Amino acid sequence: MNRRRRIYEGKAKILFEGPEPGTLVQYFKDDATAGNGAKHDVIDGKGVLNNRISEFIFSKLNGLGIPTHFIRRINMREQLIKEVEIIPLEIIVRNVAAGSLVKRLGLEPGTQLPRSIIEFCYKDDALNDPMVSEEHITAFGWATPQELDDIMSLAIRVNDFLSGLFMGVGIQLVDFKIEVGRLYEGDMMRIVLADEISPDNCRLWDIKTRNKLDKDRFREDLGGLVDAYREVAQRLGILVEAENALTTGPRLVQ
Amino acid sequence: MNRRRRIYEGKAKILFEGPEPGTLVQYFKDDATAGNGAKHDVIDGKGVLNNRISEFIFSKLNGLGIPTHFIRRINMREQLIKEVEIIPLEIIVRNVAAGSLVKRLGLEPGTQLPRSIIEFCYKDDALNDPMVSEEHITAFGWATPQELDDIMSLAIRVNDFLSGLFMGVGIQLVDFKIEVGRLYEGDMMRIVLADEISPDNCRLWDIKTRNKLDKDRFREDLGGLVDAYREVAQRLGILVEAENALTTGPRLVQ
Repeated sequence: MNRRRRIYEGKAKILFEGPEPGTLVQYFKDDATAGNGAKHDVIDGKGVLNNRISEFIFSKLNGLGIPTHFIRRINMREQLIKEVEIIPLEIIVRNVAAGSLVKRLGLEPGTQLPRSIIEFCYKDDALNDPMVSEEHITAFGWATPQELDDIMSLAIRVNDFLSGLFMGVGIQLVDFKIEVGRLYEGDMMRIVLADEISPDNCRLWDIKTRNKLDKDRFREDLGGLVDAYREVAQRLGILVEAENALTTGPRLVQ
Repeated sequence: MNRRRRIYEGKAKILFEGPEPGTLVQYFKDDATAGNGAKHDVIDGKGVLNNRISEFIFSKLNGLGIPTHFIRRINMREQLIKEVEIIPLEIIVRNVAAGSLVKRLGLEPGTQLPRSIIEFCYKDDALNDPMVSEEHITAFGWATPQELDDIMSLAIRVNDFLSGLFMGVGIQLVDFKIEVGRLYEGDMMRIVLADEISPDNCRLWDIKTRNKLDKDRFREDLGGLVDAYREVAQRLGILVEAENALTTGPRLVQ
């Protein structure tokens, strides 16, 4: 692996300079964190699975005309993506009450919400990613009202597709988090899906057993995280490639 | 004082059945609380001052065509109001960074906000009045999208008037909290301002000295709360009545 300029390192991924202007390489680490990094572990093979699952989802979204930053997977741990200007928001779409919403609003976990709810958090580790409303977002200029409309439409489309996809393989999409960015092409700018979609940022419950097939296994010390992610990959029909990756993929030399 | 049916008792006020159907009597207590009741004290004369200040503001708002529940003041501690169906939201309008916003978003207290920001909290003491967004409000049916539009328009009008009023008497309106309700008249329903507007639920800073003339004096143990409220009443030109009230007003027999 050539020495490449490291653009950004997050908790679960690293972004490197890409082969061409306007591109980046997104590298998936095995690190698992929760509680804004308060809890941390390295889980062998997680990055490979997430890379493959996220590739699968992003290419299907691209195919449906839902714009994303994804170009193609390069190898077991890396994807080629378009460089975008990340909007500093975590966009959470909830179908069923779980996680922080349960606490905030005193709901019973697992309650079907009256309709899908979109929440926004301001991406700032030092502030613990506080929840914000459209008022804060537009007042502080993190996104314009028009961009916010585009973000919400995009989030709803992603939720529609993912809900169907997972339902088809016996999994309930409880909620998920996405990030979006501004993609500049010539004089044009549009909002596209960025980051990743994987069991790291979705809540996925087995419809029959109610088993958790997502990062809550780590957050709640349930164990079996990689097995759960592998189960998701297997149901999506992409396990073989992911399995290969577990043995042959390159590892990042720290 | 006749025995009347007590409809509701809050931290700073009591609502009694009114003399006619569709009316209530709003009684102002001397209790001061902060941190959702964690801190509590009884401050002689506060209720009388708030009753008078709130009367002054609500009657001016009525005069401007901004609908409120206020009919008239009955005595030093009581107002006659229209019965409304309270919407379970605290609506906060912020012009300058202070209080919880400073903490949430890491702002410097006193920073002028890029524009006025409207926040909503779900009124639920057990949950500590959690901040919610328009998404939660409409999804859970606490208010319809149309009602939310009406609430925001009303909040902006109140902010415009209060900002001007206080500016005129040398006070900066930093932020304030209001509550609203549904007023049913025949087949018609409209959103009206309810509750009270007083230094209990406004942040009011003296423009010259930056002195706090509001409940932060209690929250932050600065002392001089009644003096500060009296200062506000005096600048608004309504001190005489309020002062009388301090000595002649009825007290609630507990």
